[in-house]
Amino acid sequence: MSTVSINLGSRSYDIRIGRGLLSIPEEITRWVKGKQVFIISNEIVAPLYLDRLKASLDSYEVHELLLPDGEQTKNLENFSLVLDKMLSVPCNRSVTVIALGGGVVGDLAGFVAASYLRGVNLIQVPTTLLSQVDSSVGGKTGVNHELGKNMIGAFYQPKRVLIDTETLCTLDPRQLSSGLAEVIKYGLIADHELFCWLELNMESVLALDPLAIEHVVTRSCINKSKIVEQDELEGGVRALLNLGHTFGHAIETATGYASWLHGEAVATGIMMAAHMSSLYGWLGKKECDRVERLLGKAALPASPFQGIGPAKMLELMQLDKKVQDGQLRLVLLKGLGNASVIEGPDSKYLNATLEYFAGKD
Amino acid sequence: MSTVSINLGSRSYDIRIGRGLLSIPEEITRWVKGKQVFIISNEIVAPLYLDRLKASLDSYEVHELLLPDGEQTKNLENFSLVLDKMLSVPCNRSVTVIALGGGVVGDLAGFVAASYLRGVNLIQVPTTLLSQVDSSVGGKTGVNHELGKNMIGAFYQPKRVLIDTETLCTLDPRQLSSGLAEVIKYGLIADHELFCWLELNMESVLALDPLAIEHVVTRSCINKSKIVEQDELEGGVRALLNLGHTFGHAIETATGYASWLHGEAVATGIMMAAHMSSLYGWLGKKECDRVERLLGKAALPASPFQGIGPAKMLELMQLDKKVQDGQLRLVLLKGLGNASVIEGPDSKYLNATLEYFAGKD
Repeated sequence: MSTVSINLGSRSYDIRIGRGLLSIPEEITRWVKGKQVFIISNEIVAPLYLDRLKASLDSYEVHELLLPDGEQTKNLENFSLVLDKMLSVPCNRSVTVIALGGGVVGDLAGFVAASYLRGVNLIQVPTTLLSQVDSSVGGKTGVNHELGKNMIGAFYQPKRVLIDTETLCTLDPRQLSSGLAEVIKYGLIADHELFCWLELNMESVLALDPLAIEHVVTRSCINKSKIVEQDELEGGVRALLNLGHTFGHAIETATGYASWLHGEAVATGIMMAAHMSSLYGWLGKKECDRVERLLGKAALPASPFQGIGPAKMLELMQLDKKVQDGQLRLVLLKGLGNASVIEGPDSKYLNATLEYFAGKD
Repeated sequence: MSTVSINLGSRSYDIRIGRGLLSIPEEITRWVKGKQVFIISNEIVAPLYLDRLKASLDSYEVHELLLPDGEQTKNLENFSLVLDKMLSVPCNRSVTVIALGGGVVGDLAGFVAASYLRGVNLIQVPTTLLSQVDSSVGGKTGVNHELGKNMIGAFYQPKRVLIDTETLCTLDPRQLSSGLAEVIKYGLIADHELFCWLELNMESVLALDPLAIEHVVTRSCINKSKIVEQDELEGGVRALLNLGHTFGHAIETATGYASWLHGEAVATGIMMAAHMSSLYGWLGKKECDRVERLLGKAALPASPFQGIGPAKMLELMQLDKKVQDGQLRLVLLKGLGNASVIEGPDSKYLNATLEYFAGKD
């Protein structure tokens, strides 16, 4: 077991990482303030882990709401639906919201916890690799809008993140790979050692070797916590975490959050950023190939794709939250383990990248 | 002109109070960060003051959205509508949201600013007495739910509050009185001197004497700022600001936010709290009469009312945000200028108060 602390003054909290944590009541109950618990989960995760979580909460008044699985669930309608349910209980100000599931459940439940009675206690229990290494940590919550991903939400920190790595055993391999896109991202933006370790150990990770998994999750959380501590509200360095995401979000929005998993879109986006960085002359051909090879090892897409087109991609990228007064901002690579935010990137290189990857309009 | 500072670390800001501030561009533009401004107002206020505000913003890209007037506007549907409009512009992360209007506009616009791209700049330009002395100051934002008032929202501080007291000249007298309920509240919970001043000067206030109005607004903002500085997130002393509000919110919810103005419901709620305090023996008959007389002078209701009934009142009060694990909390008076939060109030006194004021079921 390991613990990663996030130091944010009065909003500080710990991430606990280990096998079987869900079955240890005190790992959870110490962070439940009142008598009421409201668990938000989904129809895939609940049959697997809800009873285990509830068994650890047997002295509380426990309510639950299960949402459909999938990115399409993360919208204002379901936000409103959860609030209706909590108000009809009624849950009071000392209720603790527990998000049991992947990033969709965590983001939606986080925004609900931020908004219900202007903010109640939140515990994140992420059950996918993607949410364990990324979305459950750092306080970004929210929902999608048909005009863009994560457009509506709040920065709202949980009281605790509880990562039971055993939950990965029931995870679909495609979802596991999706999470690895974010792990590879940490290697690329700030942790060259992690990148090299992944090149050597990807098979152990995919085989869910317990030590390899704990290493990957812990190292990712440490990387994320360091960045979030420096820049909680994404005024600066936190933007680096968006490597591959401006491209990736455009892909997800264009395809209705349906056919691509988030990590798959991000993987392709990372490859696009690497390609564009090489056009700038910042990343050598050999390094670019290493990125592509590692993404491939993780069973992630990194090749040109069809069906969106460069013009649509550009239009959707203009909607990105990082656009400042019409100026696009992209995270690009200046080596493996070294990323920079580029304001108003060269449209020649951007267009070439979009045309190479997103095909014809 | 006067300035009241709210010291909340990195979230500190100033409230500017004076006649004609809307027509002084630098009073506004200094707090606009990017090039885009999104003004949220309503159909009553916009014809009166929108052009004046826009004239002060002529070098910016200004967008606007007008909502219907009235408390019924403050709901999740309109929250969603405003976000749709901002995304379709599209507004970027450096947009400044300006709320031009009363408490409904300010609360809704504040929650929109808190949630749009996880938070953008906000300037409050309150145009009613109620919003100038209360809702625009201190960062409480949100919308109502059919099961209760202000149930969904965020604590989100503006960058500036700009109070042009000239806007009160076009205010409906009933709305002016509604604002005075909150002013009287400050006198009752923490400012005995203000209470006595109001007893002597209520006529000048109702006649909109400029000095009297500036005194009332400034003094109210100082009272509120002192409390908010001690307790931004309502963990303790801020609850005192809810004197009369637990009763008042129940009245508003029961009547669908239509027939009663907020301040009218609060005034009756203050009288109910005073009555209940006298049953405890904490407030003498003479003091209770002074409260009733001052509310009457401000043309506010303070008498028993019909149509809800004690059982319904109690049920709705149980939904109050201050309820902790089933335990009702009420703000009661221990003298004029001295209030306390009472946990689990004596049901004998509470029932007697509800039966006296809310009539038969």
